[in-house]
Amino acid sequence: MSIRHQFTSFVHRLQDEICQALEEVDGDAKFISDQWQREGGGGGDTRVIAGGRIFEKGGVNTSVVHGKLPDSMKKKFGVSSDDFYATGISLVLHPGNPYVPTVHANFRYFEILENGQVIDQWFGGGADLTPYYIFEEDARHFHQTWKSVCDTFNPEFYPTFKKNCDDYFFNSHRNEARGIGGIFFDYLKQDDEVDILDRMNFTMAAGEEFLNSYLPILTRRRDLSFDQDNKYWQEIRRGRYVEFNLIHDRGTTFGLKTNGRTESILMSLPPTVRWDYDFQPESGSEEAKLLESLKPRNWLAI
Amino acid sequence: MSIRHQFTSFVHRLQDEICQALEEVDGDAKFISDQWQREGGGGGDTRVIAGGRIFEKGGVNTSVVHGKLPDSMKKKFGVSSDDFYATGISLVLHPGNPYVPTVHANFRYFEILENGQVIDQWFGGGADLTPYYIFEEDARHFHQTWKSVCDTFNPEFYPTFKKNCDDYFFNSHRNEARGIGGIFFDYLKQDDEVDILDRMNFTMAAGEEFLNSYLPILTRRRDLSFDQDNKYWQEIRRGRYVEFNLIHDRGTTFGLKTNGRTESILMSLPPTVRWDYDFQPESGSEEAKLLESLKPRNWLAI
Repeated sequence: MSIRHQFTSFVHRLQDEICQALEEVDGDAKFISDQWQREGGGGGDTRVIAGGRIFEKGGVNTSVVHGKLPDSMKKKFGVSSDDFYATGISLVLHPGNPYVPTVHANFRYFEILENGQVIDQWFGGGADLTPYYIFEEDARHFHQTWKSVCDTFNPEFYPTFKKNCDDYFFNSHRNEARGIGGIFFDYLKQDDEVDILDRMNFTMAAGEEFLNSYLPILTRRRDLSFDQDNKYWQEIRRGRYVEFNLIHDRGTTFGLKTNGRTESILMSLPPTVRWDYDFQPESGSEEAKLLESLKPRNWLAI
Repeated sequence: MSIRHQFTSFVHRLQDEICQALEEVDGDAKFISDQWQREGGGGGDTRVIAGGRIFEKGGVNTSVVHGKLPDSMKKKFGVSSDDFYATGISLVLHPGNPYVPTVHANFRYFEILENGQVIDQWFGGGADLTPYYIFEEDARHFHQTWKSVCDTFNPEFYPTFKKNCDDYFFNSHRNEARGIGGIFFDYLKQDDEVDILDRMNFTMAAGEEFLNSYLPILTRRRDLSFDQDNKYWQEIRRGRYVEFNLIHDRGTTFGLKTNGRTESILMSLPPTVRWDYDFQPESGSEEAKLLESLKPRNWLAI
């Protein structure tokens, strides 16, 4: 079975598995599926949950798209042909309780074809956590989960992919990380030593770890009681999430400027958000402690 | 007295005048002034109002900055020297009542210098209105005010500057205007027929019209009663305002990527904002009627 076929099936299976697990955890809200077609070829399945007991808003989307690359992307990838095939799963969860972090993950596969033959192919993906209050135990658990799956394949993966993640999810205009990181990888291709099949196996193994990386954290924090001040802080911090996605995130800005499906792309934005002028938490508070955590750090050495 | 000196004084006088008038209208909240220095030269006076009877959030900022242009701007302006001086006033008001529109305006002056001599200089500015509910009377008043001041100087100004505004304040990723427009002009230089002094006089006259363009609208709508659904709609629409400012607005994205003062730049963002997946107003509703208005239109012919 082709890599393309295997990974596309995986993406849909993982979407079902994650949506089912999240519905069970929420115990109230259900995902609504919005299937769409892409004019240039292919389409997607945007699954959205909202107003739940746990999830104030979330989306677990898949897409399978193919056709012709725009010139800008052809140039960016440095490829000789503009025929492409791409598939992936992308998710963002915004829990209502400010003690439960927001999480983002995606796992994806890209192919360039010439005369119907695959001439280039690669995997990408990752996951990162955006807490509103810092629990070192949670940060350790999240990073340890990703390190473990990385180490099974290559001891270089975790340090490299963790650094990618720290570098990428950074609000440079505030000199502050979006969250506490995780892993991020792209253009993971075959080479002289490692076959593309092994790259796929890694990406699938990582995808399968998503629920393990997040659910134990959610379970630990979901019943903590919170007040309006905690919610206010969460909404201020969600503003930073919006800023990252709309100003810096390459996927979002590229998608929006090249006629991507706006509602599926902006599914990632939080439900309620707040911008105050120059909001500063009290020094020594739990809120101030979060800010101190928003810099690249080796969470596994704490 | 130099153009630079005259316009800089004007900007500060207008800031005082507008802040005073808005405080009177609000009757409760006061502006707080936050004065800041710029590392490369100059600084600003960010004046913020929040939690008022009328204004949920607003800012009326001035800045006077000088020093060396970054290469990217030198290139963009096509100038031979990198010494610059710039001053301007910029304001955004977000009223709490969804029947009162958000308004934005700015008026500014730019100089390029070589060996201490001005070798190029221009004015820019404009104002645009972003309603949450459409009142044709308000749209007409806003446009008529700007047309009148434009016509005093040049009959070409209003049609040209209105089109600039429609083209600029457009959320291309939603194929929808940010609001109902107004005027927008830039690089307004002297030419064979018109002296730079006349350009300054026009820009000042426009600045002096700001309160006339907005306060009558505010006065007409401020006491309309509204419910949670109206507020919800306002917050959804405020999301589009954030999208424009963070994705498309050149001033914002340029400022944030070149180490501008983040809090002064993002003062423009609304206080409370909401993103729902694929929110659609009921067909035939007042909310749907707004969406139909968000395309370039000759408001003075309605």
